[in-house]
Amino acid sequence: MRKPKIVILGAGYGGLMTATRLQKQIGVNEADIILVNKNDYHYETTWLHEASAGTLHHDRVRYDIREVIDTHKVEFVQASVEEIKTEENTVILDNGEISYDYLVIALGAEAETFGIKGLKEHAFTIVNVNAARQIREHIEYQFATYNTEKEKKDERLSIVVGGAGFTGIEFLGELANRIPELCKEYDVDYHKVKLICVEAAPTVLPGFDPELVNYAVSYLEKKGVEFRIGTAIKEGIPGGIIVAKGEEEVEEIKAETVVWAAGVRGNSVIENSGLEAMRGRVKVAHDLRVPGKDNVFIVGDCSLVINEEINRPYPPTAQIAMQQGEVCARNLAALVRGKTELETFEFHNKGTVCSLGEDEAIGTAFGKKVIGGKAALLKKVIDNRSLFMIGGPSLVFKKGKFNIF
Amino acid sequence: MRKPKIVILGAGYGGLMTATRLQKQIGVNEADIILVNKNDYHYETTWLHEASAGTLHHDRVRYDIREVIDTHKVEFVQASVEEIKTEENTVILDNGEISYDYLVIALGAEAETFGIKGLKEHAFTIVNVNAARQIREHIEYQFATYNTEKEKKDERLSIVVGGAGFTGIEFLGELANRIPELCKEYDVDYHKVKLICVEAAPTVLPGFDPELVNYAVSYLEKKGVEFRIGTAIKEGIPGGIIVAKGEEEVEEIKAETVVWAAGVRGNSVIENSGLEAMRGRVKVAHDLRVPGKDNVFIVGDCSLVINEEINRPYPPTAQIAMQQGEVCARNLAALVRGKTELETFEFHNKGTVCSLGEDEAIGTAFGKKVIGGKAALLKKVIDNRSLFMIGGPSLVFKKGKFNIF
Repeated sequence: MRKPKIVILGAGYGGLMTATRLQKQIGVNEADIILVNKNDYHYETTWLHEASAGTLHHDRVRYDIREVIDTHKVEFVQASVEEIKTEENTVILDNGEISYDYLVIALGAEAETFGIKGLKEHAFTIVNVNAARQIREHIEYQFATYNTEKEKKDERLSIVVGGAGFTGIEFLGELANRIPELCKEYDVDYHKVKLICVEAAPTVLPGFDPELVNYAVSYLEKKGVEFRIGTAIKEGIPGGIIVAKGEEEVEEIKAETVVWAAGVRGNSVIENSGLEAMRGRVKVAHDLRVPGKDNVFIVGDCSLVINEEINRPYPPTAQIAMQQGEVCARNLAALVRGKTELETFEFHNKGTVCSLGEDEAIGTAFGKKVIGGKAALLKKVIDNRSLFMIGGPSLVFKKGKFNIF
Repeated sequence: MRKPKIVILGAGYGGLMTATRLQKQIGVNEADIILVNKNDYHYETTWLHEASAGTLHHDRVRYDIREVIDTHKVEFVQASVEEIKTEENTVILDNGEISYDYLVIALGAEAETFGIKGLKEHAFTIVNVNAARQIREHIEYQFATYNTEKEKKDERLSIVVGGAGFTGIEFLGELANRIPELCKEYDVDYHKVKLICVEAAPTVLPGFDPELVNYAVSYLEKKGVEFRIGTAIKEGIPGGIIVAKGEEEVEEIKAETVVWAAGVRGNSVIENSGLEAMRGRVKVAHDLRVPGKDNVFIVGDCSLVINEEINRPYPPTAQIAMQQGEVCARNLAALVRGKTELETFEFHNKGTVCSLGEDEAIGTAFGKKVIGGKAALLKKVIDNRSLFMIGGPSLVFKKGKFNIF
């Protein structure tokens, strides 16, 4: 009897959780498991803002995939996914193709610029390790260049963050801590540096409790962040952005560093493969399968699950992706064993903590508000938990955050 | 009786040696001493290639001027010199002006691009701490950007060093050591990186013994440096250089980093002030004074002293500048005390060691050739000696190079 072949695309939170759970749940003789990923490492997407600001080295936010998979049970293939042919049960890779009996699409998100002109060309996005490292180096180069020019260009010391959502705010928190270090390293006057957060919506951190939002804003303002709320970016240009000012006017904000942190969408492979999706996200069935395709699961950023309490999709987070990975692994094991009754995915929100830098955060945990140092500690516990869930205690020991006192 | 006012322009090797010797030789009541420098720190010009390559942090190559001057005896003024009006015994600064009875011009060298088109715009030069830091960051940014681009631009990983003289070779030695670190930091394949040395002259390190030159070239070649000797740079362009190829043809070498290390000249303030000079260097009298100006001394890179053995000027080095500073200090003390007989400056060449990176070097010392690890050790002794001469043992302790075993 031929063993079924399970192919998992992507080694982010969802894909890696699926793979590491599956390798425990099924035997070598039950199925072949293949994990496909562009890089030979997994990175903590939720820590990338730290690598981008330069407050945490990028090697601290990634680890070798082979460290956490059981290579006797899971074969790792390093490749980029180009297209999924669900009719033919085949995936087209950049270096070949691969067939499957069961497929898990766990490809990550991409930046969404909502068609705003010039943003793709002139703004950075915190999408992966390469991008984070480039942002860090770009900022450092701007600071290093400042003193070499006879006519000083203050815009080299200005950083615009587009978006006051989760990523934007966490990035600003790290930047606010990083700026004094940068000023020292590059002999730059602290008062010349500008951190500007531009947000089109009327509020910072939509969805958060107003008390927490106020705490975050006033904390970051004290650290030098200037908020331009209710201000839409009209265009990204070389050396800055154009924003709307009132109904008809526009204003230029000069900044050699513009980081767009205001939107993500599902992976473009989804649409390239002809799957029905909204901004690259597929509304999956209760068992996480693609409607009408009984051997294809989607977990993580490319899946869309409705929060029925408010009748809106859950935002794509590491938390939901990992919970999906657990269910997906159990459902795959069931299918391999010939069962037809699959488990329904239900999201259990354990809370959300938004960091404001190393020692400050705000959030909710198990329904309670947390603020300040206590929230920052909780954030580190959450970060370490992701490591633990995928790689167990040894991974926490290697990559965990222990500067907690 | 009014005290005479001695003004020293520049806190490089020559100026700082003059100031620190003078503060020991004359009493507070004998003269006012004012030291003018653009930055509040002195930097080791001969170590800048290390900071540029990123093998030594720029804070290791500089120290606070106030650490080595006796602030009861020497007043420090932070300012840039714009013009010297010798007729009026006045110096025009960027933030005021200052009059003097005796002047020491110890302004440093500037890069000389010999009118080669586009070099000023598109090439870096290792001229000061700001420039060194920018070169380091520029290279890092190029490496960081490489992996973010879908279409890889190998020229981001190419570094051209213009000139195979002392600075060019020392810089290449550091770069050769730095490249493996950069490849690791930025996930770049070592084999994609190119280090190219372009030199118009028919030989590397002109003036050095051929045996030493051969050693240096084959050592650096083994470390991956490609030498293009007898090849003139015709033009600096965005993303590379144009070189002569044969009599009539030209060739483009693509490289996002071009560092011009092939020439220095005296400071442009010299010419702006109407002093008779060749490429910013004034042929000084035997007592280091400017001919016809009995109260103006020049030491260091803006002075020109003929080596009578070969009837050519001594090249501007830290060694000669410091020896001039010692004589200049004694001559100033003599003048202040009303003496008219001044000491004649004679250069005592103690040898030259050209480093090829941390653990390798070539050179001559007291007439003997040295090579390899022994020469590298000697180089560190020389580097520490500069610190000792100006700041004594405490400065050596703070800033010295002790990784000598």
